[in-house]
Amino acid sequence: MKARLLAAALALAAAPAVAQDISVREIGSFHVGGSVATVAGLEPREITFSPGSPPFRYDPNGDFQAGQMYVQYVRLANPRARYPLLLMHGGGLTGVTWETTPDGRTGWQMDFLRAGHDVYVSDAVARGRAGWARYPEILKGEPIFRTMGEGWHLFRVGPADGWSREAGARRAYDGTRFPLAAWDQFTKQSVPRWVTTDPMIQAAYDAYVQRVCPCVIVVHSQGGNFAFRAALNAPDKIKAIVAVEPSGAPNPANDQAAKVKDIPNLMVWGDYLDQNALWTRIKPAIDRWDGAIREAGGRVDELNLPARGIRGNSHMLMMDANSDEIAGLLQAWIAERGLVR
Amino acid sequence: MKARLLAAALALAAAPAVAQDISVREIGSFHVGGSVATVAGLEPREITFSPGSPPFRYDPNGDFQAGQMYVQYVRLANPRARYPLLLMHGGGLTGVTWETTPDGRTGWQMDFLRAGHDVYVSDAVARGRAGWARYPEILKGEPIFRTMGEGWHLFRVGPADGWSREAGARRAYDGTRFPLAAWDQFTKQSVPRWVTTDPMIQAAYDAYVQRVCPCVIVVHSQGGNFAFRAALNAPDKIKAIVAVEPSGAPNPANDQAAKVKDIPNLMVWGDYLDQNALWTRIKPAIDRWDGAIREAGGRVDELNLPARGIRGNSHMLMMDANSDEIAGLLQAWIAERGLVR
Repeated sequence: MKARLLAAALALAAAPAVAQDISVREIGSFHVGGSVATVAGLEPREITFSPGSPPFRYDPNGDFQAGQMYVQYVRLANPRARYPLLLMHGGGLTGVTWETTPDGRTGWQMDFLRAGHDVYVSDAVARGRAGWARYPEILKGEPIFRTMGEGWHLFRVGPADGWSREAGARRAYDGTRFPLAAWDQFTKQSVPRWVTTDPMIQAAYDAYVQRVCPCVIVVHSQGGNFAFRAALNAPDKIKAIVAVEPSGAPNPANDQAAKVKDIPNLMVWGDYLDQNALWTRIKPAIDRWDGAIREAGGRVDELNLPARGIRGNSHMLMMDANSDEIAGLLQAWIAERGLVR
Repeated sequence: MKARLLAAALALAAAPAVAQDISVREIGSFHVGGSVATVAGLEPREITFSPGSPPFRYDPNGDFQAGQMYVQYVRLANPRARYPLLLMHGGGLTGVTWETTPDGRTGWQMDFLRAGHDVYVSDAVARGRAGWARYPEILKGEPIFRTMGEGWHLFRVGPADGWSREAGARRAYDGTRFPLAAWDQFTKQSVPRWVTTDPMIQAAYDAYVQRVCPCVIVVHSQGGNFAFRAALNAPDKIKAIVAVEPSGAPNPANDQAAKVKDIPNLMVWGDYLDQNALWTRIKPAIDRWDGAIREAGGRVDELNLPARGIRGNSHMLMMDANSDEIAGLLQAWIAERGLVR
């Protein structure tokens, strides 16, 4: 695989820099999953919707939608890929992850459209355009908000003590590929999250898979565990999973990896994993799931970028300076699985 | 104008039903506006991001982005429109308003792309993919949530006493064009909102206009007041405003309509306005602003659909059964202003 991936990367590097137009059949969206929840016993009050508009009696009680997720799709006139490609984001973020990079370069959504896939980008339950419901009445607990600095180390852009509110005083890892000048812009993509909503999120992902698959999934970080479970819940619907730095995976002691042995997996890892205590603890849990799939006779490939001589990638690979190159490596692996005509 | 609009509508009705592919140069997004806010004095706690992942110490204090908005664009290979078209949503909703209708038909985003515009769809501050910040520390007050039933009368689909949780027991206005069977699906598009954030929202819209205009704006409901003020704040940047059922407008006693007299306006109104007390009170405030622009020598056209014999439209015109027809009327007006090549 290594030689072919390298060839693909070189071919991509040699491609003309001129952007390629795409012929689009339809751009659209839908919400999927969720159910109706009821709130009762709260006090009504009077509000004004817009300056100058008359007062309106606001009654917070009633029925509300909760647990739905948002999906936006771009369908090509002539897709070359055999199945739609589903891009699933990580924690504290939305589908924006896959769009234009924070420093304004082409994102993976556009890269994979140009590579011939119908591309679906989702916002998980209670993130972004999925909407969110009242808490603690409907969503349990309270949301957590990511500070501008938290990701600096968590996403392996720099050491824990390298963060500073002052851009000029920040210390990044040597050779990082994250576009440092766009860090503050990147943090505008953050959205609050609840850590109590995983069953609701999973149910919506399962409904999503039932609606649009068979498909190929590219998933990032916290999304990994949801995608692996979606595969366990509908193994016939998923033709491949590319997991980009998954932060969780099923435990082989509780879940049967044999169920998903016919789904090829590619695990993608960036640099500096050993410099972050959390990631040092996360990766063995993923490796354990990979091992269980292999033991069951399935295929799990690992694209360990530093091991291939590609150094400096953060957790946010799809935003790093070499994001197009990495998309090319993923595309080559997907094509090698026979999933592109 | 009436005869030409009718001709345009007939031409559109005569167009083949086959969907037209579009040649797209780029799909992308960005966040614009906002600033950094600091939270201090809250208690740290321990959380788990994903099932099976190690515990993480969550400190809610620090710096956060607040007040940014989200913009997604689709740029054509060969736009026929002279300027990008900005679609701005109303209250309690997001840019999803302009995408596929709740019953799965083509939305105005796609209609206007096919009509030759580069189309920009935004989520206002603290809605959808714009993200939202902690309250009451950063955003003031608390959010309000729209019940599934509130819009039934507010959006003039049916009488106030016509709402029922049971779909079969709901009473709509005779002849409504809203796709009734998709009402529950539509309510999945709702997002919470704060009524304290208007200055923040306006500042982001102003930054948005500075970034992407000159442009043409199509705006709905609560967005109307923001668009009218964006025009007052940057009259040279906006080439036309199509206000679809605006719920607020500047007061001529406080703002000089003369500033925006060179911007043509089209005000679009649906049916059943006189059957809703709130809309009966809203429309005169809009008419007052229209009158002030006309008095200053400017142009304000009104597309009053029932007066044109087009009956049954709700407040959510872009989702009604005749949404494509109405988009055609808007397109004809924009073209008549010389804004399409």
